[in-house]
Amino acid sequence: MTSQPIKLNDKETVLQFLNSYDTFLFDCDGVLWSGTHLLPNVIETLSLLEKLNKTVLFVTNNSTKSRQDYTKKFANFGIKNVSKDQIFSSSFATAIYMKNFSSLDPKTDKIWVFGESGIEKELQEVGFTTLGGTDPRLLEEWDQQKTPFLPCDPSVKAVVAGLDTKINFHKLCVTFNYLKEDDVKYVATNIDSTFPGKPYLQPGCGSMIELLTKSSGRSEPPNCGKPSQLMLDTVFEAFPNLKREKCCMVGDRLNTDIKFGIDGKLGGQLLVLSGVEKESCLSDETHGFELPKYYADKLGDVYEHYSE
Amino acid sequence: MTSQPIKLNDKETVLQFLNSYDTFLFDCDGVLWSGTHLLPNVIETLSLLEKLNKTVLFVTNNSTKSRQDYTKKFANFGIKNVSKDQIFSSSFATAIYMKNFSSLDPKTDKIWVFGESGIEKELQEVGFTTLGGTDPRLLEEWDQQKTPFLPCDPSVKAVVAGLDTKINFHKLCVTFNYLKEDDVKYVATNIDSTFPGKPYLQPGCGSMIELLTKSSGRSEPPNCGKPSQLMLDTVFEAFPNLKREKCCMVGDRLNTDIKFGIDGKLGGQLLVLSGVEKESCLSDETHGFELPKYYADKLGDVYEHYSE
Repeated sequence: MTSQPIKLNDKETVLQFLNSYDTFLFDCDGVLWSGTHLLPNVIETLSLLEKLNKTVLFVTNNSTKSRQDYTKKFANFGIKNVSKDQIFSSSFATAIYMKNFSSLDPKTDKIWVFGESGIEKELQEVGFTTLGGTDPRLLEEWDQQKTPFLPCDPSVKAVVAGLDTKINFHKLCVTFNYLKEDDVKYVATNIDSTFPGKPYLQPGCGSMIELLTKSSGRSEPPNCGKPSQLMLDTVFEAFPNLKREKCCMVGDRLNTDIKFGIDGKLGGQLLVLSGVEKESCLSDETHGFELPKYYADKLGDVYEHYSE
Repeated sequence: MTSQPIKLNDKETVLQFLNSYDTFLFDCDGVLWSGTHLLPNVIETLSLLEKLNKTVLFVTNNSTKSRQDYTKKFANFGIKNVSKDQIFSSSFATAIYMKNFSSLDPKTDKIWVFGESGIEKELQEVGFTTLGGTDPRLLEEWDQQKTPFLPCDPSVKAVVAGLDTKINFHKLCVTFNYLKEDDVKYVATNIDSTFPGKPYLQPGCGSMIELLTKSSGRSEPPNCGKPSQLMLDTVFEAFPNLKREKCCMVGDRLNTDIKFGIDGKLGGQLLVLSGVEKESCLSDETHGFELPKYYADKLGDVYEHYSE
């Protein structure tokens, strides 16, 4: 276990924190924004890091958007100058995994997608042909005599599954039939059982994966989202000069973000209390997860105390 | 383990079989019909049983139809004179369970339904008010600001979940939010992970239950379908004079129908090979399920050998 976390609550501690790392990896929802609402002094904190010549990266389990789409989301929040190269989504990590580690050949092997456009776009960008996904014909009612998606296309060699908020029986039936094929690989973008909304919590990607896994009798698939180290491998492949001890993971969840940073042997972790976790998780450790090196009420405290 | 099953392949064996029981419980799909196709000499076999004054009951895990709707299905196949009282569906068994064993009061306690009309109709018939289910507003796109189904109605004290071939994210999100309420009970109609179609196998009720269970962090719910004995309890409640040793369960699956008959200590079980199982399951017992007392290529063989 790590020692008790240090709270970023004065200038001295913040300076010590900033001096310890040259790279900061940020979770997004619950850290930078909450739903559609930008959190206070986030832009100021990111500008400060830029001024201090820190490398800033964003690591999100959200697979529904491509990295390009994500840059627009940042811009809409007024967070300028974030480029696609700074963003690591579970859809991108999955595409890199499929390209490098799945033994599939993008020239001949197609991928059936259960999920949204972020997965399709990232897989296509690394060269794969995708089927399924957002194809509008999948929104038609399931009719096994008429579906254009079965019988299975023998050139499909993998199913990539992620969150699909347009889930329906047609998609489930076709995906299930691909998963019944022995030579079709099965990979999940992430396994978060829920994801936050305002005001309601919602069933997440991991719950949909559970349905597909249970019905098909498959083993649990590898997944490319935090806390899986496949996501961190993608970051280090893109930025081979990063030094783990000089990196700090910033997030709002112990079981994904902080675990991701600890398992990845990053130099530090900062838990912000503006998302899922409450301060009580630092004293009541019945959750069983390791604690971060630092914590703060919110990310903006870095800027606020630095400017004191 | 039972001794090696006896094949119904001549008149003498069929007479011995018929003389052993006064009540026959039939699974439907794979036994009487296959999808939309009536199996050979089924009507003749059922007429023969009627002529011999046998009690004939139908026990199905299909929760999508009410018993009343099921009588129409029988009539459409040309199987006459089947009354509602002869039919036991998992939706009916669930309604009886909710009425007798759930401690809910139908006068004040409502039930949220994830599933099709069979569940709603059976719950309503025993006096419950249902919400959700086939409400057309649930077919509208999920919008957590606009859904008329949240926040949770505090008079809802249970979620009943079954197969829903109109599954969508709106239904999942609302059901999930009810399941996050500590005082809301959770019951499943059945846990079949798949169900047959022509030509494609499809994800079943049990897979959807898995999604709901995983996302909400609930324990596995009790379920009222075969092989659960809650289903058999419903049969014996409706027909208290039945004698278990004089009953024979007829079905096409070892893991549901035959297990249901063996666990329920019924006098006999007949496996028909016109559905899920192939003859090889009788010699290769790596599936781990107990074998039935009798087997036949198809149900119609009873009539064919009797008439020899």
